[in-house]
Amino acid sequence: VMSLPIRTLSSIIAWACPWYHIRQDKILLPDGSEGEYNVLVKEPAVWIVPVTDAGEIVLIRSYRHTVTDWCWEVPAGSRKPGQTSEEAAREELHEEIGGLAAELTYITRFYTANGICNEESHLFLARGVSLTAPQHEPAEVIQIHPTPIPEVLRMARAGEITDGGSALASLLCEQYLD
Amino acid sequence: VMSLPIRTLSSIIAWACPWYHIRQDKILLPDGSEGEYNVLVKEPAVWIVPVTDAGEIVLIRSYRHTVTDWCWEVPAGSRKPGQTSEEAAREELHEEIGGLAAELTYITRFYTANGICNEESHLFLARGVSLTAPQHEPAEVIQIHPTPIPEVLRMARAGEITDGGSALASLLCEQYLD
Repeated sequence: VMSLPIRTLSSIIAWACPWYHIRQDKILLPDGSEGEYNVLVKEPAVWIVPVTDAGEIVLIRSYRHTVTDWCWEVPAGSRKPGQTSEEAAREELHEEIGGLAAELTYITRFYTANGICNEESHLFLARGVSLTAPQHEPAEVIQIHPTPIPEVLRMARAGEITDGGSALASLLCEQYLD
Repeated sequence: VMSLPIRTLSSIIAWACPWYHIRQDKILLPDGSEGEYNVLVKEPAVWIVPVTDAGEIVLIRSYRHTVTDWCWEVPAGSRKPGQTSEEAAREELHEEIGGLAAELTYITRFYTANGICNEESHLFLARGVSLTAPQHEPAEVIQIHPTPIPEVLRMARAGEITDGGSALASLLCEQYLD
């Protein structure tokens, strides 16, 4: 067993809000020096690439206050404590686009932003998706745009899907779409 | 001109560290209700896909304290105030892998994690990269692995490049590699 190159000597919660907290770690570095690392701690996330039987991916156009910009995205959200990733994926699919999936396939995982955050993202491909009425929260400003698969892949490669996680999710699902 | 659907009513700095701060915004939502949004504010990032004349992408194996895990990545880092993105890209390339690029091409931009953070990422493809001695900071635990391009793309698609930004960077550069 290889020991971890960076060890945590002590931790405090430096700041917290309802969605995440900042854990401030005093760390021991490989050269023997001590340092400080602030880790944004949050629940894992789920990302869903929703595909309809008509060969479309259901993109959303989402207004993001963080960047004061509209972004092309796929449905995503945080897993609630006690939920499985699959339960969270079905819930986000339903809340954000009113989507019901005939089949939900786990694809892979990735770290969203491993320089600042412990968030692990779990990616699902949803097939046979049918759309009902979405249930947006007031802060979710979302338009729903079913888009042909080749056009979504073109948008991802062209940098038009400006949400990094959504662009990656689309490109990772390409190999399973035909 | 379309007005923004979410308006900021007031802001405070809720917490700060040397690398970023948390801005706590009181916001006005489209339904007229008020809410709170905490935005992690930091400098833009740069990502570099470094390609050698031997047809390899220079991957790094980076230990990330945030997720207590080793991750396959490409060089990346934050832009310093006053730097252009290209200057930051050349600096990170040199610091992390000792890389010197014959040609640096801007590819596109993406938002790293637009649910929590304002970070905008700028992606560069570096060609004709030669390697000299890297200059790692103590907290940067990095191994350097030049890897054939097709193997890197396979790793990205298989979910083995667990850093989301690095997987996306590799897949976005695929169309410019031959």
